[in-house]
Amino acid sequence: MNSVHMDQLSWVEYERRVRDGAVLFLPCGATEQHGPHLPLGTDALLASAICADVAQRIGGLVAPALSYGYKSQPKCGGGQHFCGTTSLDGATLSALVRDAVREFHRHGVRRLVLVVGHYENQWFVGEGIQLALRELGPDAGLEVMRLEHWDFCREQTLADVFPNGFPGFALEHAAVIETSLMLHYYPSLVALERIPEDACADFPPYDMYPPRTEWVPPSGVLSSAKGSTAGKGQRMADDIVSGIAAAVCHEFDLGNLQ
Amino acid sequence: MNSVHMDQLSWVEYERRVRDGAVLFLPCGATEQHGPHLPLGTDALLASAICADVAQRIGGLVAPALSYGYKSQPKCGGGQHFCGTTSLDGATLSALVRDAVREFHRHGVRRLVLVVGHYENQWFVGEGIQLALRELGPDAGLEVMRLEHWDFCREQTLADVFPNGFPGFALEHAAVIETSLMLHYYPSLVALERIPEDACADFPPYDMYPPRTEWVPPSGVLSSAKGSTAGKGQRMADDIVSGIAAAVCHEFDLGNLQ
Amino acid sequence: MNSVHMDQLSWVEYERRVRDGAVLFLPCGATEQHGPHLPLGTDALLASAICADVAQRIGGLVAPALSYGYKSQPKCGGGQHFCGTTSLDGATLSALVRDAVREFHRHGVRRLVLVVGHYENQWFVGEGIQLALRELGPDAGLEVMRLEHWDFCREQTLADVFPNGFPGFALEHAAVIETSLMLHYYPSLVALERIPEDACADFPPYDMYPPRTEWVPPSGVLSSAKGSTAGKGQRMADDIVSGIAAAVCHEFDLGNLQ
Amino acid sequence: MNSVHMDQLSWVEYERRVRDGAVLFLPCGATEQHGPHLPLGTDALLASAICADVAQRIGGLVAPALSYGYKSQPKCGGGQHFCGTTSLDGATLSALVRDAVREFHRHGVRRLVLVVGHYENQWFVGEGIQLALRELGPDAGLEVMRLEHWDFCREQTLADVFPNGFPGFALEHAAVIETSLMLHYYPSLVALERIPEDACADFPPYDMYPPRTEWVPPSGVLSSAKGSTAGKGQRMADDIVSGIAAAVCHEFDLGNLQ
Amino acid sequence: MNSVHMDQLSWVEYERRVRDGAVLFLPCGATEQHGPHLPLGTDALLASAICADVAQRIGGLVAPALSYGYKSQPKCGGGQHFCGTTSLDGATLSALVRDAVREFHRHGVRRLVLVVGHYENQWFVGEGIQLALRELGPDAGLEVMRLEHWDFCREQTLADVFPNGFPGFALEHAAVIETSLMLHYYPSLVALERIPEDACADFPPYDMYPPRTEWVPPSGVLSSAKGSTAGKGQRMADDIVSGIAAAVCHEFDLGNLQ
Amino acid sequence: MNSVHMDQLSWVEYERRVRDGAVLFLPCGATEQHGPHLPLGTDALLASAICADVAQRIGGLVAPALSYGYKSQPKCGGGQHFCGTTSLDGATLSALVRDAVREFHRHGVRRLVLVVGHYENQWFVGEGIQLALRELGPDAGLEVMRLEHWDFCREQTLADVFPNGFPGFALEHAAVIETSLMLHYYPSLVALERIPEDACADFPPYDMYPPRTEWVPPSGVLSSAKGSTAGKGQRMADDIVSGIAAAVCHEFDLGNLQ
Repeated sequence: MNSVHMDQLSWVEYERRVRDGAVLFLPCGATEQHGPHLPLGTDALLASAICADVAQRIGGLVAPALSYGYKSQPKCGGGQHFCGTTSLDGATLSALVRDAVREFHRHGVRRLVLVVGHYENQWFVGEGIQLALRELGPDAGLEVMRLEHWDFCREQTLADVFPNGFPGFALEHAAVIETSLMLHYYPSLVALERIPEDACADFPPYDMYPPRTEWVPPSGVLSSAKGSTAGKGQRMADDIVSGIAAAVCHEFDLGNLQ
Repeated sequence: MNSVHMDQLSWVEYERRVRDGAVLFLPCGATEQHGPHLPLGTDALLASAICADVAQRIGGLVAPALSYGYKSQPKCGGGQHFCGTTSLDGATLSALVRDAVREFHRHGVRRLVLVVGHYENQWFVGEGIQLALRELGPDAGLEVMRLEHWDFCREQTLADVFPNGFPGFALEHAAVIETSLMLHYYPSLVALERIPEDACADFPPYDMYPPRTEWVPPSGVLSSAKGSTAGKGQRMADDIVSGIAAAVCHEFDLGNLQ
Repeated sequence: MNSVHMDQLSWVEYERRVRDGAVLFLPCGATEQHGPHLPLGTDALLASAICADVAQRIGGLVAPALSYGYKSQPKCGGGQHFCGTTSLDGATLSALVRDAVREFHRHGVRRLVLVVGHYENQWFVGEGIQLALRELGPDAGLEVMRLEHWDFCREQTLADVFPNGFPGFALEHAAVIETSLMLHYYPSLVALERIPEDACADFPPYDMYPPRTEWVPPSGVLSSAKGSTAGKGQRMADDIVSGIAAAVCHEFDLGNLQ
Repeated sequence: MNSVHMDQLSWVEYERRVRDGAVLFLPCGATEQHGPHLPLGTDALLASAICADVAQRIGGLVAPALSYGYKSQPKCGGGQHFCGTTSLDGATLSALVRDAVREFHRHGVRRLVLVVGHYENQWFVGEGIQLALRELGPDAGLEVMRLEHWDFCREQTLADVFPNGFPGFALEHAAVIETSLMLHYYPSLVALERIPEDACADFPPYDMYPPRTEWVPPSGVLSSAKGSTAGKGQRMADDIVSGIAAAVCHEFDLGNLQ
Repeated sequence: MNSVHMDQLSWVEYERRVRDGAVLFLPCGATEQHGPHLPLGTDALLASAICADVAQRIGGLVAPALSYGYKSQPKCGGGQHFCGTTSLDGATLSALVRDAVREFHRHGVRRLVLVVGHYENQWFVGEGIQLALRELGPDAGLEVMRLEHWDFCREQTLADVFPNGFPGFALEHAAVIETSLMLHYYPSLVALERIPEDACADFPPYDMYPPRTEWVPPSGVLSSAKGSTAGKGQRMADDIVSGIAAAVCHEFDLGNLQ
Repeated sequence: MNSVHMDQLSWVEYERRVRDGAVLFLPCGATEQHGPHLPLGTDALLASAICADVAQRIGGLVAPALSYGYKSQPKCGGGQHFCGTTSLDGATLSALVRDAVREFHRHGVRRLVLVVGHYENQWFVGEGIQLALRELGPDAGLEVMRLEHWDFCREQTLADVFPNGFPGFALEHAAVIETSLMLHYYPSLVALERIPEDACADFPPYDMYPPRTEWVPPSGVLSSAKGSTAGKGQRMADDIVSGIAAAVCHEFDLGNLQ
């Protein structure tokens, strides 16, 4: 029972580690189309893998991922018209996070990190954290970090990964970053031969409801995944994992654990 | 991409199978103490494994499990005072199920099975299904089955597994059934040497709030797990998997698929 | 003003009794079909009568019954397709219970018993209690008991009432137990001559949504009510009333009151 | 089974009457202090009695009363600081009404009357009706009347009952109207000798939160109940019952039923 | 930055005044038809103007108005069938008020006045206040006044303004009081020439859902606005402003401020 | 009554314009600290002014602004610890938007534009729109645009306004863009002499809850507002107004209206 995964530990072992001050990581994923070459679970799978790597490094724990996320938006995830995309209402996701945070606090967890792997989750996950903290009151002693993992890619790495210029995280749905990270962490789940030829999506500075589905490439890929490699994935994963570990140690005063 | 697991399939492959009429299974688990010898994820792990076995047999699909469930109750799960038990409010769980069912319907799924692996989930999962169906309206064409997997153990099997008499499913928390099923499906996650010596819990015919924690053995095991074996697990898994498959084929008129 | 019924007392008298430590009972009923021979109010009527008997015995009080309950399920109450069955959403029932518990606590009540007379209510009533206690905080000093009254029938009584074997509480909807109790408490509301001839319903180990209405006898009676008598009702009522009184005295340290 | 009370009828008899077009009445009461001389259940008791009288007259049905109502306000019900007053949040009451209306519609009821017996209920009951009708859609065919029963007292009656001038319905809490109606309908529940001597409460044209409890007489009676008689009660009940019956027949085109 | 309007002040200036004990006023308006001669924003505009006048007089502050209110009812606002009337669900309005009150408390505000300018708002605004105070707990130290501004018109003023008798506030929708107040505060927004000739609406003592739209004059004016003048408006505004100022000083012990 | 402001129009005039196909604009603002030099209402004021300019240009209408927005976040609005910042829970804001959109649809509006003036509003406003459209159903015929107005500043304009490089919209809180736009639209509400000297805030790629208030300059200004001018404001306003007008005409096929 040497695992970092909470769901693989007995409560006795989990309690021991929590008492020892372990940082708990909660991956916040989604079930969302990721083009014809990546699996529907990409966001939860990547967030979980990254959490596990960070937890290994700093003696932390990883809670079971939230496998369903907020509604996919055309400009960052393709939109709700895709088959397979399985999304929650905002209030449901916020309640889910609120309940989980409340429980982790009851366990004695005082350092919690929510690792968002699905762009659309950010605000509703943040709301859930804030609702929990309000309910727990000012003396709860719980500190929570929330982050989107891709924000820890270093500039130089992005410059190297995108020699023709980085299109921005918004368009990086099912594209080079996610595909490379999946090649690094879950190579058997990537179908490189199915990467579509779609050109980069070009969105206007506004959103339409109901969505203009014609704005989104039929494949669901917002910019090309061509050029993805496991090596690029490893390099970005290194940035992300070391970056998160450093941030966690810095904010939670864990200098000696790393 | 031969998997039955939705999160390992691309949306294109998932859509193809849904169009072909695949039955979709949603495991409804929990993160809950299961004694010192079983992991916190037992309920989600078992429900997922059983769903996968049934889906293999009938050409179905398995959606990502709900990893968090309704509040643990002393008389069937030990109660909310255990560290590690991570539970949702009833309204949160019902909303989660409602949202998921609504989305599966949008995908074109018309035959859906929710496999409950956590006793306390039943009513709130059922409410979520009913809320979704009311919202979808009378012409939705969606049929949903909900079941607790252990109810498919045959009488003769239970008689053989419990030669001294079956204590009933309520007390079978972290006991012989779950331990044997875990030995069958996930042997590396079972710590047989840590099975406690606790005698069978004996509960009065009422519940107290706040819970009388002294009613529950400190280990969290409600009746002894001694005597659990992988063989018993396999035999019960056979009952459960074949029973669910038969029920699904019967209710959804899938005679030719099995 | 010698009544045990809260709604028949002035607030001055109610306050006096609460200050003296009276246990408060809240009957949680339903408005639900109970076959052609029992009235729609059976669950609330029986729960109220039992509460009154217990309150008489131990100097308690009975709050006005919750007359509407959670959605009727085919396998224990016939289902929502029956005319007359008038049910609440789960969240509504839980909120109703939460609000009532919060108010009783404000009154000074510290010993509260929720007597469920409708099988489907259990989990949503329990959730309402838990929501109220969380809101009231750890120092509220309120202890709540929740029970389903039929669980207090003694084994020997059941053996005598069902000489051919007890079919289980789930099928005992509008059948011998409820009909006999109604003959004991409200004989004028029972139409013995209309007891249907339906054979015992036989349900599979799963539920379907929308319900398979053909599973349920058209009368709404899940097993035969033939053989019901007021005498059987009295005997079961004796078990139930004395059992609840003993449980209440035991849990609330009321040894001298009985 | 000649009763107008839904909870005393079998579903078969209820269904027959609904199919014959019976108007259904839902009494919306409260559990609220009504001075030292009237019981806590006054509002539900009076609304139920009035509904029964009207239903008798026009061949209608009476559903089980809502026994708990919206929060008591100082200026019309004394306020929430009284022991015994047991109130619901606004959203709970609206949900309760919404659910009940939705169910009555499913039964086939097309003419529904909600008789409010607690001043504070009006707006949240109205909201519940509107929520249900929106959900049922524009083709539901359900017509709902909502009324406060005291508004049917005729001017001449009020002039006779209050020879010194009518103080207005707002102050008529536990005063002459309610006491007289209780003497008419439930004389055994009135303790005439406990009517307090409190002078008429005098409220400013605004409300304070938390309430200024010193505004309210300690007895909870907002204007004197002296002079209440069963005769006055009967006369007002006649106004109310005949007035409601006429309104119902007028609005629901039931000319021949009266 | 000498304004009383919070939205025109910097946070630094606002904080200074709050620390000095300024009373904060929140106008609670609506967007609702007010006949062909008054604008849709009448309720928010009047409540804001009155708040500003009172705040000027006592050194208070005015928060941005709630511009949308509870659903218009036929008998006091014409009803929801009018174009332009833009209303909130009750729960939305209560949540809005609850959130605002919670925030004002966080700012350090301890004396808060909610000035309702839309008859239908009263109960849902009151509920929002009560929800906030419950959440803030018994030691919050926040005192809230809620009022409907028209209730501060003095009897003599009403007698003078309505020489033929005052029809009551319920029918005073878009009629003499509101039109005169608008002529006083916002003369350019009044189209006197479009005042309709509609006779006074005459409503029965009950409400129907869906509304009987034929009860309401097609113009939306419930009693005639003929005879409205700026002078009458000024006189009523004087009553209202001085009355509210006096009430505030009385309840909040601000004797020296006026 | 030539105004574009809905709240200044009678319902008759509003209805006429809606029938003629007018586009309706809803400004979504906030009450939030904007440094010592800008007023708390900046976000609502700017969104309203921009909406009015666009509406003038294309014959549209402007609904009353939402004056309260979602919780301020440290990295884009300074955070919830500032006095004066008055924020809503996410669910409240979404419900507010949902209700408003539902009502505009009932009015006959078929082209609706929500102009967000507060960065934190985006996702909860979007959720509100989506909730409304789901409720209205697939045949509602309502098209909604949502935009953040600053996204319509052209690149060349930003290059000219920020000769030393544009710090990004996230840090542009109470800085050059907002200050210049306020100087253009509401010069009397800007206190140029109080612009603080704070250096540009520098945030890490994650958020902490409770917030690390020391990350945020005490003034609440996230990057310097030095160099703001009315001329820059006019130039950006021109970009924004013409950009939105063009987008609206393009998406809503209003070629002839501009």
